[in-house]
Amino acid sequence: MASYANQECFQSNDDLPIVLLHRLPSFNSPLKDILQPHFHLLDPADSPEPASSFLSCHAKSVRALICIYNTPLSAETLNLLPSLELIVAASAGVDHIDLEECRCRGIIMTNASTAFAEDAADHAVALLIDVCRRISTADRFVRAGLWPVKRDCSLGFKMGRKRVGIVGLGRIGFEVGKRLEAFGCSIAYNSRKKKPSVPFSYHANVLDLAEDSDALILCCSLTEQTHHIINKDVLEALGKEGVIINVGRGALIDEKVLVQFLLRGDIGGAGLDVFENEPDVPRELFELDNVVLSPHRAIFTSESLEALHELVFTNLKAFFSNKPLQSVFQIE
Amino acid sequence: MASYANQECFQSNDDLPIVLLHRLPSFNSPLKDILQPHFHLLDPADSPEPASSFLSCHAKSVRALICIYNTPLSAETLNLLPSLELIVAASAGVDHIDLEECRCRGIIMTNASTAFAEDAADHAVALLIDVCRRISTADRFVRAGLWPVKRDCSLGFKMGRKRVGIVGLGRIGFEVGKRLEAFGCSIAYNSRKKKPSVPFSYHANVLDLAEDSDALILCCSLTEQTHHIINKDVLEALGKEGVIINVGRGALIDEKVLVQFLLRGDIGGAGLDVFENEPDVPRELFELDNVVLSPHRAIFTSESLEALHELVFTNLKAFFSNKPLQSVFQIE
Repeated sequence: MASYANQECFQSNDDLPIVLLHRLPSFNSPLKDILQPHFHLLDPADSPEPASSFLSCHAKSVRALICIYNTPLSAETLNLLPSLELIVAASAGVDHIDLEECRCRGIIMTNASTAFAEDAADHAVALLIDVCRRISTADRFVRAGLWPVKRDCSLGFKMGRKRVGIVGLGRIGFEVGKRLEAFGCSIAYNSRKKKPSVPFSYHANVLDLAEDSDALILCCSLTEQTHHIINKDVLEALGKEGVIINVGRGALIDEKVLVQFLLRGDIGGAGLDVFENEPDVPRELFELDNVVLSPHRAIFTSESLEALHELVFTNLKAFFSNKPLQSVFQIE
Repeated sequence: MASYANQECFQSNDDLPIVLLHRLPSFNSPLKDILQPHFHLLDPADSPEPASSFLSCHAKSVRALICIYNTPLSAETLNLLPSLELIVAASAGVDHIDLEECRCRGIIMTNASTAFAEDAADHAVALLIDVCRRISTADRFVRAGLWPVKRDCSLGFKMGRKRVGIVGLGRIGFEVGKRLEAFGCSIAYNSRKKKPSVPFSYHANVLDLAEDSDALILCCSLTEQTHHIINKDVLEALGKEGVIINVGRGALIDEKVLVQFLLRGDIGGAGLDVFENEPDVPRELFELDNVVLSPHRAIFTSESLEALHELVFTNLKAFFSNKPLQSVFQIE
């Protein structure tokens, strides 16, 4: 049972710690109902006032904010919150939040990568096997009634024993590596720093990693440093049989360049959960059998949403009790 | 490099050991070209004579036969081969061969499960993740252009940490278990006998295994004992959220019953690589999002076909040199 369900609430609403809910009006998260008994929630999206005047009037003393999914959180909004100390991001990626402003102000941030790590890793592995073994293509082939007619659909290639390079070895990347080792894959990674406790081999830059890999899996955050980290040079280094998997953010890849590589057969395949201009996906990809597409859902299972709710609740409770936070995101 | 490529051949064709190639005329395996320099191959499918008279005239002294893929090999055919000692099955399953006749005659059989184990296991895991996380469904959703319109497709459920029951713990089943442990799944199995060297927990019958599992994965051979081993009772025991994966043979499952369970929502989903009447697949399944279908291709990668050719060659060489065989199938 989730811990918030165990907590009794004897306080009146006015005694509860104030938490600002920052969300696009269309994001109706169940978090609101879950947190309501335990915190005094301010929700500008529920007010008839414009958000900026709501914040100016009611949020001057707010110390903690929950950012729902990828609701943009700009420096302008942050400037209306002079007392803000904590942002609890209900997402794994935090590229929708003005990190530079947070860093300057010393605002602490937690994200949801620990809640999402296992499901995101499962999804990354699923996309890789699917591209290699043409599972979605095979499913389309059977459903189209082609098996009795053509007898054979395109042959896949072995996923096991391949050299896999993981870009970004946080919780998600680590879980991906752990899974793929069991398939006999050899695992290498690139991240800001070498991680001494990890058994995988380290490459200081992505180009070298791509040269030594049969598949690259993108699990890193999108920042200024990682924007278009997968460019023409990296794709060339990955080579004609190389596969690229992205469960991070669309703009980690120069998408136009990737589409050209795929159309020309200059890369072996791609499994993409994220795109540069979601929900728009380049239509040229729709005809390709060596591509698997999913609508930014690597983390969406009922189990991981439950884990997210638990993590958000636990972190807010910990913050207001001066206890250690979980899943703190290091702003660099 | 494959070992057959290293072998020089100084013998004339007449000095080479005779091997009978048993195949449907449509099965043009590259094995023929690979074996030709090393064995005197008899290929009835290449002769204008009817197969039975070809065998009666030319195959009386044949000691070894290669059965290509699932070419049926009946008692009638075996009766035309009085000297036969070895069947090298170029397939993992051997239900197309009259096992009772082989047992009575003391014919030794090898199959290809060691060559195919890793790819078959990868495919089984791929189907399980795909059913749980709705990968093929998501891919259809994006390709149909629905993402910008509907925003959201059906939510999957977590695959990791589930209780997985493996039916048949040969090489393929063991490889499946090894992979799924890395996803945090707990693994149990059913097979003819408990395997003391294996860390997974044993269930003496499939019904108990189904009751204790969130997913069942079928990796066993099709024999009289395993025909329709998955029936109404087992599916009921697996339950409304249970998932069934089949990379064995179609007739392991009572397919009509499974279709009814899926249509009524009495089972959570299915990933099927094999069917009772291939290439015919029940059309009712084509509309279901909790089903993933592939055209009997769990083992087909270029790498596993290469491993198959190597295994067939090695076993024939070993047989004619009185050396130990690999991947011997125990006929019981």
